[in-house]
Amino acid sequence: MFITFEGIEGCGKTTQIELLFTYLKNKGYKVIRTREPGGTPFGEELREAFLRTESKVSSMCELLVFTAMRAQHVEEIIEPALRNGIIVLCDRFSDATYAYQGFGRGLNLDTIDSLNQLATRGLAPDVTIFMDLPAREGLLRKARSAKMDRFETEKISFHNRIRQGYKKLTKKEPDRFLIIDATLDIGTIQRHIRDKIRKALRSNAI
Amino acid sequence: MFITFEGIEGCGKTTQIELLFTYLKNKGYKVIRTREPGGTPFGEELREAFLRTESKVSSMCELLVFTAMRAQHVEEIIEPALRNGIIVLCDRFSDATYAYQGFGRGLNLDTIDSLNQLATRGLAPDVTIFMDLPAREGLLRKARSAKMDRFETEKISFHNRIRQGYKKLTKKEPDRFLIIDATLDIGTIQRHIRDKIRKALRSNAI
Repeated sequence: MFITFEGIEGCGKTTQIELLFTYLKNKGYKVIRTREPGGTPFGEELREAFLRTESKVSSMCELLVFTAMRAQHVEEIIEPALRNGIIVLCDRFSDATYAYQGFGRGLNLDTIDSLNQLATRGLAPDVTIFMDLPAREGLLRKARSAKMDRFETEKISFHNRIRQGYKKLTKKEPDRFLIIDATLDIGTIQRHIRDKIRKALRSNAI
Repeated sequence: MFITFEGIEGCGKTTQIELLFTYLKNKGYKVIRTREPGGTPFGEELREAFLRTESKVSSMCELLVFTAMRAQHVEEIIEPALRNGIIVLCDRFSDATYAYQGFGRGLNLDTIDSLNQLATRGLAPDVTIFMDLPAREGLLRKARSAKMDRFETEKISFHNRIRQGYKKLTKKEPDRFLIIDATLDIGTIQRHIRDKIRKALRSNAI
């Protein structure tokens, strides 16, 4: 089973993935956590180069670098894990590319579609947790923490477009998505997530 | 005018570009030298990450990273230079992707085609100098120099496929290509290149 987590900066994905990972592990499931952009040794090197560079990066270049990282990630980590019956929890995946580079940067959605196909070879998440949060709230949370990266320093309108983009994606595939109000407390959010995953695991007969 | 130089490792492109650059500059032309993969500040960061990594890099990931670098290069360097009437001398361009990732790595040529379209937005070289050299000779030349990179350490059969791939490309567009026997001496090669460029400049009425 392939489970992805999506949402704008500061929505609390990382905390929830950590909690779900521990929960599933304690239940006896084989499970791994991973993330995008990055997720492989080379992908993490590219992630670091991208997030920290002071140089100009065009939107198309950004899209292609992210696609490159995904191709490596799917081939090296995600597909082998799934083939071995391991549950994969992934912090961002294809939906993030539609949201960030499509709705956020304004790149053509069909172009993103064909690049995603190249990178994923058709692999799609079984369940996607979308943690919905107003852009202002997410950025406030981030501003309280460490140094901001390339995306975190973008204007609030950019993050608003991404949030609205994610909402459009959930409407196209309502069964795959669990939409969560990310302003709720951590424990309540985790309960909603566990309910969804338990149901999905039962119907997948794992 | 957009002039690219192609060929396997050790074929002597860099020396010839340098000589042509100085020649054109002395003739009063505005001219720049650039290279792929890389060519922009961010592209050079990616190039370095790719050539020096010890991590696994799939062929598709490699193709996508190279395409990303090209998108940045065309947008930031090549197109603005050409718009300003500057002659661009580029060490490798799209042909190298067909040769290395297509004929060398065995990736689908139509996939490479559509990725090249994304990166170049249709920009193609006016003249391409293909410096043809047996793979064995190129690798011997490289082995005499410094530390070998990711491509240079590939087997001779890989470099043979690339050489044959380049030859196929020259047959598809014989007018664009000048094929040079790269075993000739530096001065003779440079004379052939200058003849071709002078003719091209005249017919371009620059």
